[in-house]
Amino acid sequence: MQKKAPRMANPQKLERFVSTALQGAGVPLGDADLTASILIDADLRGIDSHGVINLYGSYIKKLLSGKIKSKPEIKMALGSPTTASLDGDNGLGFVVSHRAMNECIGMAKKYGTGWATVCNSNHSGAGAFYVLMAARQDMIGIHWSTGGSTVAGPGGKGRLIGNNVFAMAAPGKTQGPFVLDMAPTMAIANKLHMRQWEGKSMPEGWAIDSEGRPITDPNLYFAEEGAILPLGSTASHGVHKGFGLLLVTDILTGLLSGDGGSMLRRKGEESQAFCALRIDAFPTGGEFKDLMDVMIEKIHAAPTVEGVGRMRYPGERGNLTYKERSATGIPLRQKVVEELWKMSAELNLSMDDIWQK
Amino acid sequence: MQKKAPRMANPQKLERFVSTALQGAGVPLGDADLTASILIDADLRGIDSHGVINLYGSYIKKLLSGKIKSKPEIKMALGSPTTASLDGDNGLGFVVSHRAMNECIGMAKKYGTGWATVCNSNHSGAGAFYVLMAARQDMIGIHWSTGGSTVAGPGGKGRLIGNNVFAMAAPGKTQGPFVLDMAPTMAIANKLHMRQWEGKSMPEGWAIDSEGRPITDPNLYFAEEGAILPLGSTASHGVHKGFGLLLVTDILTGLLSGDGGSMLRRKGEESQAFCALRIDAFPTGGEFKDLMDVMIEKIHAAPTVEGVGRMRYPGERGNLTYKERSATGIPLRQKVVEELWKMSAELNLSMDDIWQK
Repeated sequence: MQKKAPRMANPQKLERFVSTALQGAGVPLGDADLTASILIDADLRGIDSHGVINLYGSYIKKLLSGKIKSKPEIKMALGSPTTASLDGDNGLGFVVSHRAMNECIGMAKKYGTGWATVCNSNHSGAGAFYVLMAARQDMIGIHWSTGGSTVAGPGGKGRLIGNNVFAMAAPGKTQGPFVLDMAPTMAIANKLHMRQWEGKSMPEGWAIDSEGRPITDPNLYFAEEGAILPLGSTASHGVHKGFGLLLVTDILTGLLSGDGGSMLRRKGEESQAFCALRIDAFPTGGEFKDLMDVMIEKIHAAPTVEGVGRMRYPGERGNLTYKERSATGIPLRQKVVEELWKMSAELNLSMDDIWQK
Repeated sequence: MQKKAPRMANPQKLERFVSTALQGAGVPLGDADLTASILIDADLRGIDSHGVINLYGSYIKKLLSGKIKSKPEIKMALGSPTTASLDGDNGLGFVVSHRAMNECIGMAKKYGTGWATVCNSNHSGAGAFYVLMAARQDMIGIHWSTGGSTVAGPGGKGRLIGNNVFAMAAPGKTQGPFVLDMAPTMAIANKLHMRQWEGKSMPEGWAIDSEGRPITDPNLYFAEEGAILPLGSTASHGVHKGFGLLLVTDILTGLLSGDGGSMLRRKGEESQAFCALRIDAFPTGGEFKDLMDVMIEKIHAAPTVEGVGRMRYPGERGNLTYKERSATGIPLRQKVVEELWKMSAELNLSMDDIWQK
């Protein structure tokens, strides 16, 4: 296991580089810029599993092979003043997801709330980005997305359901924003990859092999078609709750969008759902941001056991990391740099100019 | 520990008895009948922790002492075509919750979706009832409610946040309905009570004492102001995810309703939120119920490890129990019967007529 310190990339330069790479794979300028900004946002927030780490393998290679359409024709149909169904035409998940949340925000401005489903989509990166679009407009943003079908059901053996996402953001006044962006599972596959690269084992309870036996070696997970467990992990610890939440995402994304969700995938790789809720559309919403500050202060003041440090609200670490990395740059692991090198060779790009001075 | 077989009560007779008791505590006929039907519904579905077990302690005693108003004046204000804020005037949580979900359904009929928040409310029983109201109208019903403040934050000691509820229901065609009704925590306090009565210990990871040390004796939880842990239980098993979901409920119920949620409780004991989503308001919603059936069939067909039996969808056991108990009656534990006896003595009621023949 070779381990080097990560190299620091300059966020703006890396973003331009990513956009150029996407354009090199046939993506139009606007879509490439948008996708690059969402990927860099994830890296800035410290969501390393959803940033440029996936650029080559999950997007560029698939664009080049035609598995993802570079110039999709996104279709949208409205069914009521507050509901829309979008079809991503098998393009990048980022582009149709961004469009869908924008539609939700527009509907919420007029009618209080907005909902949109997306089928025929692909991986759309970190959910944090989309829900923050709403929070910046003084709305609550909610987002669900199917994820790779890597997860077992309770008592099951083998992969059954997606590592599905739930995300929500809400603005504070001086604190926040609150950003929860999670899969109701024990881990996501990229976390297992990182442990594999680092030669680390997994905690007990994260995963099982294809026969349903508990495993802690990430290599076994990949070699033997293992499965990740829903949040809760075991019957006595509430694995049915994690599984229920995974199904909620499949219902709101896949079933409402006509795709069928992570267990059926009839219309593309992934499906998504978005919701925006205008805070001042609630007659009682006037104090919302003040109450958000009070809630966060209460979390910070909560007594903790020795050695644990101050309790944090969801998104706090990401908000801090965003500020830090905006100044210091984005650390790229050796493994990621190597991937980007390979990609650069294929696309005839130079990486010389992406580094932090 | 005395243990007798539970006695079987007749559902219709028990419902009338519950309504009579509520009327005896000053609740008007319509509200009493409604509340009784919601409590009996929970018992029929097998949600024993949210049925008549709570009648005396959580409702009748509080109605008699004036802690809950028997004749509240519920107020509602609309802020947009799809959003409403309700104030329960410190009446029974059931009544205002039922009204709020009905408003959501009405808004969804007209505009596709409907949202309502409720402040100044009280315990409203099992969330399953409210979300099923929407599912019966071919809508997706979603519900959040604060719960008793019995839960610690990650790494915390002492009680910080409510044992908050998330519930969702969706209709199937020949299968279902899907009904998820859960708290993203390791357990609810009533489950600890039941273990205490039965002289059973708790699984490791459910609770901590006031110093943050793990405990498995439910008596210690009650004697020492212990705290229940969020779903996930430990850092490596995702306790921050459970905590994040608890905060989501506080934000959507308490912060949007002006109450402040389970950590502040400025306007009453509990606050709630409701959402109804009309399925055919989504242009892609036409196949929804068929896809729901396919999803459920896929869950049933999933291979499981030996000895575990067939995998179930959320609500399946409740749907079955509902049918069973409608025929055989509702089993009442000795402890619950004793409570109802005490209540009957206080209200001068007879329980002779509630039993299954």
